[in-house]
Amino acid sequence: MHSEFELITRFFTPDPPGAEAGVTLGVGDDCTLLAPTPGQRLAVSVDTSVAGIHFPVDAPAVAVGHRALAVSLSDLAAMGAHGRWCLMSLTLPAADDEAWLADFARGFHALCDAAGTALVGGDVTRGELAIGVTVMGEVPPEQALTRSGARPGDLLVVTGALGGGAGGLALWQRGERDTDHPLLQRYLHPLPRLEAGLALRGLASAAIDVSDGLLADLDHLLDASGVGAELTLDSLPLAEGLVAALGEEEAQQAGLNGGDDYELLLGLPPEHLDKARDRLAALGLALTVIGRFSDESGVQGVTATGERGWQHFAGGGAP
Amino acid sequence: MHSEFELITRFFTPDPPGAEAGVTLGVGDDCTLLAPTPGQRLAVSVDTSVAGIHFPVDAPAVAVGHRALAVSLSDLAAMGAHGRWCLMSLTLPAADDEAWLADFARGFHALCDAAGTALVGGDVTRGELAIGVTVMGEVPPEQALTRSGARPGDLLVVTGALGGGAGGLALWQRGERDTDHPLLQRYLHPLPRLEAGLALRGLASAAIDVSDGLLADLDHLLDASGVGAELTLDSLPLAEGLVAALGEEEAQQAGLNGGDDYELLLGLPPEHLDKARDRLAALGLALTVIGRFSDESGVQGVTATGERGWQHFAGGGAP
Repeated sequence: MHSEFELITRFFTPDPPGAEAGVTLGVGDDCTLLAPTPGQRLAVSVDTSVAGIHFPVDAPAVAVGHRALAVSLSDLAAMGAHGRWCLMSLTLPAADDEAWLADFARGFHALCDAAGTALVGGDVTRGELAIGVTVMGEVPPEQALTRSGARPGDLLVVTGALGGGAGGLALWQRGERDTDHPLLQRYLHPLPRLEAGLALRGLASAAIDVSDGLLADLDHLLDASGVGAELTLDSLPLAEGLVAALGEEEAQQAGLNGGDDYELLLGLPPEHLDKARDRLAALGLALTVIGRFSDESGVQGVTATGERGWQHFAGGGAP
Repeated sequence: MHSEFELITRFFTPDPPGAEAGVTLGVGDDCTLLAPTPGQRLAVSVDTSVAGIHFPVDAPAVAVGHRALAVSLSDLAAMGAHGRWCLMSLTLPAADDEAWLADFARGFHALCDAAGTALVGGDVTRGELAIGVTVMGEVPPEQALTRSGARPGDLLVVTGALGGGAGGLALWQRGERDTDHPLLQRYLHPLPRLEAGLALRGLASAAIDVSDGLLADLDHLLDASGVGAELTLDSLPLAEGLVAALGEEEAQQAGLNGGDDYELLLGLPPEHLDKARDRLAALGLALTVIGRFSDESGVQGVTATGERGWQHFAGGGAP
């Protein structure tokens, strides 16, 4: 049995403390002291992941650690911000499990390292397993990607592939435990699109991350921008293996309404498409045009041949 | 039944959003954008309050909201930082209780207003009641009050009064429900000593907030500063009504080991005592000398006449 202090020290203190960029006083005092970059905006967000709600209670600890940070960093990606620092509130059940905690810390730290984001503080309390992660990033003023900048005529584009998060969760619930399966990878180890967000600064007109599902997050983008959109249903870039795993119909639903993909959904003036694609290709990431913003309200589903299908309004649920 | 989004909007969105100082993009996008003050250090900390562990499950909602923020702001106070912004992770049981939530929000916002600290983000999840609060403050470099600056010969001083938090909790557990009782006030509505922290910049050599109890937090100060201390037992400024409520012996124990006081415990070079007292008097706050830092390790308890009593070492528990 370890005290909270020992837990924190053992698994979450960098070595040496305070050695990270921009940290002028590291973990171990009442606060951590940071040196924000002059002239930048500080982008902040917090997300809490609760066992049994946001991830299966039997998910691998390394994935729980990774995902808890990934979902918060995804918000920074959607602002076009660099991930700089994070703080973690860890609520642990009374029964200590050092092996679990070591794996959890490993997943968390690995993503910190990959994202260049330093863990600069946190606390540990007892209770149902939950992880709250506050992230702090930086972005120059005027370069932040907000939700409100999409204009009629802008292309509706999405990074990477859709439906993989929902597909992976469905497989997990059916008992699939091969964590190398591409869909399980997508669900358990989503990659926040930080580099893509940076690359699309100055090109995209608006951005949001796809955490709740394409249609749900598109609604937020449309609300904030005061526009509507046409969505080309046949163009959705479905995750590799999704149709094989779920069948065509369920795969399409996962692409439209599945959560946990953490791709970026953006508005893009057509003249920026080639440059945007080139920049993302350099990151090994696809950028797919899935529709166009319009001045009609709501979302109009159209087929590849231009036929109009269902219509979706905010709060109206899935087609 | 409200969606998370409605809950957040209804109780936690400022009106108008983003109207607070230093907020260039308010709640409602993927991140909030803040404009840190050039040349200042950003002081950050997070504390999570869990029902049944950090406060009684039947504590008044207004007090739960107040305390959740107060305990985090207290960390900024102990750094000599201004409280500027905060984010809240609220985990709520499945059963909505709008009256409870309204009171909770009222307690939280009232302290935000009093402390000049803006709520700039948050999330709401379902689970056992818990509130994680990340605070961000600012302090000029070189003026931060750290734990590591105490030197032998410095006075050991404490703001306000001790034992009131533990006394109030004891009364609550005995069934006292008059929330105007001074000790219940101390426990349910602790006041983070932000103004005192600012006033003692440039005077104090070290600081920590008393959250776990005087001796426990003194240990942290001594460890970080690499010094010891003599503690004058008769000099502890016990909270008003504490002896009457608990009896002399239990009151003394509450002063030494009781948590939840959120006073500042500081090192102070003797030549700064008068100025420090004057500044705190202007805030209506007492500053009491309760001992002196030394180059012997551990804590030596002495009586007012200089007699040496018990000795306490870090991790050694109460005298």
